[in-house]
Amino acid sequence: MASDETIVNNGSEQYFEGVEKLLEIWFTTSDGDDKYADLRNIPRSKLESLMKIVRCEIISFVQNDQIDAYVLSESSMFISKRRFILKTCGTTTPLLCLEPLLLLTEKYAGFNEVEDLFYSRKNYKRPELQVTPHKHFDQEVALLDAIFPDGAAYCLGAVNRDCWYLYTLNPLPQRKRRVALPSTEPDQTLEILMTDLDPEVMAIFTKEECLNATEATKKSGIDKIIPNMVIDGFLFDPCGYSMNGVTKNGCYMTIHITPEPDFSYVSFETNIPSSSIKDTIGKVLETFLPGKFTVTVFTNQDSPSKNNTKEVLELHQIANKYNRRDVQQCSFKNYDLLYAFYTKFPS
Amino acid sequence: MASDETIVNNGSEQYFEGVEKLLEIWFTTSDGDDKYADLRNIPRSKLESLMKIVRCEIISFVQNDQIDAYVLSESSMFISKRRFILKTCGTTTPLLCLEPLLLLTEKYAGFNEVEDLFYSRKNYKRPELQVTPHKHFDQEVALLDAIFPDGAAYCLGAVNRDCWYLYTLNPLPQRKRRVALPSTEPDQTLEILMTDLDPEVMAIFTKEECLNATEATKKSGIDKIIPNMVIDGFLFDPCGYSMNGVTKNGCYMTIHITPEPDFSYVSFETNIPSSSIKDTIGKVLETFLPGKFTVTVFTNQDSPSKNNTKEVLELHQIANKYNRRDVQQCSFKNYDLLYAFYTKFPS
Repeated sequence: MASDETIVNNGSEQYFEGVEKLLEIWFTTSDGDDKYADLRNIPRSKLESLMKIVRCEIISFVQNDQIDAYVLSESSMFISKRRFILKTCGTTTPLLCLEPLLLLTEKYAGFNEVEDLFYSRKNYKRPELQVTPHKHFDQEVALLDAIFPDGAAYCLGAVNRDCWYLYTLNPLPQRKRRVALPSTEPDQTLEILMTDLDPEVMAIFTKEECLNATEATKKSGIDKIIPNMVIDGFLFDPCGYSMNGVTKNGCYMTIHITPEPDFSYVSFETNIPSSSIKDTIGKVLETFLPGKFTVTVFTNQDSPSKNNTKEVLELHQIANKYNRRDVQQCSFKNYDLLYAFYTKFPS
Repeated sequence: MASDETIVNNGSEQYFEGVEKLLEIWFTTSDGDDKYADLRNIPRSKLESLMKIVRCEIISFVQNDQIDAYVLSESSMFISKRRFILKTCGTTTPLLCLEPLLLLTEKYAGFNEVEDLFYSRKNYKRPELQVTPHKHFDQEVALLDAIFPDGAAYCLGAVNRDCWYLYTLNPLPQRKRRVALPSTEPDQTLEILMTDLDPEVMAIFTKEECLNATEATKKSGIDKIIPNMVIDGFLFDPCGYSMNGVTKNGCYMTIHITPEPDFSYVSFETNIPSSSIKDTIGKVLETFLPGKFTVTVFTNQDSPSKNNTKEVLELHQIANKYNRRDVQQCSFKNYDLLYAFYTKFPS
């Protein structure tokens, strides 16, 4: 998306960094009892103060029994009982809200431990325009290392071309664990980060072509990627688009679009378990027609999507149009990760 | 190893960087005809000049019909018909010899194309002691990118802890290849890079405990890791050890040891196809007793070891003594790569 205020406009130069910083934190309690703990007990005013630190604001909100979904001036925030997701683009500073957030979760939500944490982002197109500590992954890692002794930082893909950074917790394995691991709930996340998108598709996400988000959602076919979601969308003026979708059982999807031809960028993310990750990827590509894209798939042990990552591993080519240039797999404490990077065949 | 001249000795501080820079290049000819081409046609005097640029020298040499194996003052060099391997530790500068090497191969060896290239190294313990362009991976990548338009740079393992860097060629896939890929010969490389080694084992590789390399090779059990090799070893004064082993059919193994307790380091590398990579890893660990180590396994499509990497993928623990902290897999143009990092259980 591209709200006016965060576009860099130096005379002839206009630029907006669509690439998001994505922070996902799972909380727990040191005694394992979280009956009365809930992140949604943090007061709205405190969340608004938190977003000021991040340099963005809440512009829309939907909720159900399972999840609170916020559209932000720069992307999205999802809060459920014990999982906090903050995804922000432009020149926002989400890591600066980390320590205040940990204080809020202890004071209002009853959680005093971070069970797992994932901070990730694609390489920026213009890193020099970012605000400290987000100018360089090393800076981000230093900030996180100061808080988490067990943090591990990774770079997937080609460091000197398109790549994707991840910081997560990877504690030293113990010969005998003192306490049993908490039983995990099934979880998976699919993210597709696209650049060099089709200009005609991108034109849909401008006030010139659509009146509002509802029209853009329908015209682009976003509503058909994963059906039966409650959608909260926002069409920015003059251009840019954000949407959150939630299901009754607390799953989410979120799409953010920077349509400008010189720096077009679209992100798609969902935690809905899919019977075919390949089909979901195919639908997303048909909708947005990118020139290049990364795919990341996180699955934990109990995820029904766990075995579906194999089909992605076999996906050397897609639709006789895209060729895989990189593929990597990692294993972490609770999750397996697949990373792949595709580019369009030269036309 | 640790030849006197390259040890940093500032009064109380003594340090030697055992971690090697490893360069492996496969050559071909643009017309595919390499009947009369051979890297071993490069005159010895030219190789010696090349080693001056790298800041090391040839100290021992064995050869057979298939391979020339050099022990260097800092590690090893292996030259066969179309494959050049240079592995150098300390503060050597192997990337500076790259352009002179390409000129020599064209002039004397009859090869005018680089078919594949692998430049890799573990993170240094003391990067600030290195010489430009080897102080930082970004510098090394910039030098390589200036020569190879299709180069891709990767970092495996945790960037903020123990990790391993790789630069290789990863050309943009073509929808239809203009020329057929050359049929590859079976190839595989196993490398084990060990730190925090057992002081009693390390003491073997000193002039105090052994008279010469032959004694150290036998006493340590190095001769039993892979039997039936012609071994060319060197025991440095006062300490440090290097060995090359070659087989009749042109396979090699090489071991380099920096035994000083404050910065002990051992590297093991071989391209011998193994019926069990797991067993080879086990033998190497039993011989050197490291506290931490990385394992990397490269296999191409025709390698008989290709299916043996699966057993390494399942190797979460080794000998009830080591726990895997990181595991990653990548696929490149002609090779699959497995990276794993293990640490000893806290005692």
